[in-house]
Amino acid sequence: MELVDKMLSGDERALARLITLVEKDAPEAPQIMREICHRTGRAYWIGVTGPPGSGKSTLVDRLTAILRGSGLTVGIIAVDPTSPFTGGAVLGDRIRMQQHYLDSNVFIRSMATRGSLGGLPRTARRVAKLLDAFGKDILILETVGVGQTELDIIESADTTVVVLYPGGGDAIQTMKAGLMEIADIFVVNKADRQGADQVVAEIEAMLSLSPKDSDWQVPVLTTQALNNVGIEELFQAIESHRSILESTGQLSRQRQENLKKELVRSIEQGVSEQLARLMDKDQNLVAISEKVIRGEIDPYSTAIEILRDQAMLRNWLSRIEKEEQPE
Amino acid sequence: MELVDKMLSGDERALARLITLVEKDAPEAPQIMREICHRTGRAYWIGVTGPPGSGKSTLVDRLTAILRGSGLTVGIIAVDPTSPFTGGAVLGDRIRMQQHYLDSNVFIRSMATRGSLGGLPRTARRVAKLLDAFGKDILILETVGVGQTELDIIESADTTVVVLYPGGGDAIQTMKAGLMEIADIFVVNKADRQGADQVVAEIEAMLSLSPKDSDWQVPVLTTQALNNVGIEELFQAIESHRSILESTGQLSRQRQENLKKELVRSIEQGVSEQLARLMDKDQNLVAISEKVIRGEIDPYSTAIEILRDQAMLRNWLSRIEKEEQPE
Repeated sequence: MELVDKMLSGDERALARLITLVEKDAPEAPQIMREICHRTGRAYWIGVTGPPGSGKSTLVDRLTAILRGSGLTVGIIAVDPTSPFTGGAVLGDRIRMQQHYLDSNVFIRSMATRGSLGGLPRTARRVAKLLDAFGKDILILETVGVGQTELDIIESADTTVVVLYPGGGDAIQTMKAGLMEIADIFVVNKADRQGADQVVAEIEAMLSLSPKDSDWQVPVLTTQALNNVGIEELFQAIESHRSILESTGQLSRQRQENLKKELVRSIEQGVSEQLARLMDKDQNLVAISEKVIRGEIDPYSTAIEILRDQAMLRNWLSRIEKEEQPE
Repeated sequence: MELVDKMLSGDERALARLITLVEKDAPEAPQIMREICHRTGRAYWIGVTGPPGSGKSTLVDRLTAILRGSGLTVGIIAVDPTSPFTGGAVLGDRIRMQQHYLDSNVFIRSMATRGSLGGLPRTARRVAKLLDAFGKDILILETVGVGQTELDIIESADTTVVVLYPGGGDAIQTMKAGLMEIADIFVVNKADRQGADQVVAEIEAMLSLSPKDSDWQVPVLTTQALNNVGIEELFQAIESHRSILESTGQLSRQRQENLKKELVRSIEQGVSEQLARLMDKDQNLVAISEKVIRGEIDPYSTAIEILRDQAMLRNWLSRIEKEEQPE
């Protein structure tokens, strides 16, 4: 594909066009991903997540400045929750990143979450791979840590940084539980606020209870991103984590595991999409679905029967075949 | 099934045993669900969700007292987040419900969420149907509102009550966005705390922005569950919502929609489980997966190819057939 060749030779406009194609799941997307596959795996992926109000964007901005100062090129994918009313991403604090907008070695892309409940967009990993193939040294995936996102980001980042802050209220308590499992590094940002020491102590207490099963001891750092305090230490911690992942072989194991999960997820999603189409088209399925809706048969046991019914599955396949062929 | 007959004739021990079978996805589960199918649909399902610390359990406890006072029987399914360290549900505040433990017309079942990030357990809806078939008039599904749970509960409850409280911190802001879409009734609990008026005003402001597409105007109530204040009004609001859903035909449309979704989800989940098994067994898939892991081929485009490869899918089917047959 000409566009891919252009991108691989450093054409930023080609990169932007490829990202758009991948983001909208264009028919060319599989070919694009196939062609760039051998050029990926060079970039180091950093995930930054935490609750709203923790100052993640400012932290990413300051970290980017340090990375650029070390001569590294940076790609940033910032995922914002979708507004339930406008349907668009809430891009308010993207404005803080503007110091890097003019730096051609920093590429910033904002994406909206899947629905207002968070979650990394399905295409975020593919966009990150484009930036990887383009030659960015460091990729930062910044997401709001509510619910599903955490599971997604742990499957995408090499090092995951979880950002908390003093004054997040009771709700933070529960989030912490989920975040505890995914953090490689904890950051308590806005550390000049009252209660920062307590948040650090709480995290350390929780960490001390968690099972130790790796060569890495999760550090709890304090930062004041707005005042540029503690960012250098964060960079050092990321570097330390990276070198341990590399020297123990954990990095390649992690990445292999994630590739396998990505394969499974992609198949599952394809099946779901085909199923959604068939539910409205396949005569047999429509009839069954109507019986379920009328309460004549139970959805759960019916699903199990459908999955065991070979004839029905073969019938689906032949329909998929016909519909998918010309495109 | 004898156990089902016993349960349908009012045997509580049979009910408890059936719940256990359904909860652990026992081989008998599909048959159980098939047999009770025609006895479900009588109970009215109330979902109660909100952030940790909002006092949901106390509210449910007080509401239950009023429901019992009206002569209604009640089934409660309380879903607690799993502790990441113990692996079990955090059942601390279940103790508050103890006034109803001795009342044989109130059946209480605690379940753990799927993982620490929340989400209604896959089997919760099936357990609720057992309680419905058993003859409970009202079912209450109480869940912590973090992330995925909201999506699940809106697909299960007839009326969804969202509980917030003053002092939840910034994180509540984002939750509100997600909760805004699912609430039929808002409750600001702990209304004697400072800031309650402001929370009410904020919710009302958000509601005024949201598109009006129903006959129901979402009310914002204030309660002090601990002091038993405002619970009667909550009960009245639920009754009003119910009568509008019933008179407009929305209730049966909603339930039909949910049954269809349940069918689709159950099929999807069955496919995922079979896929997970085949990923480790099917020679072809193992070979492909290893190529993906080695970075030789891209997972996304490979998944699409697999889904278009009829021969491979037929091969899977024959394997599923063989493995599933005797059980």
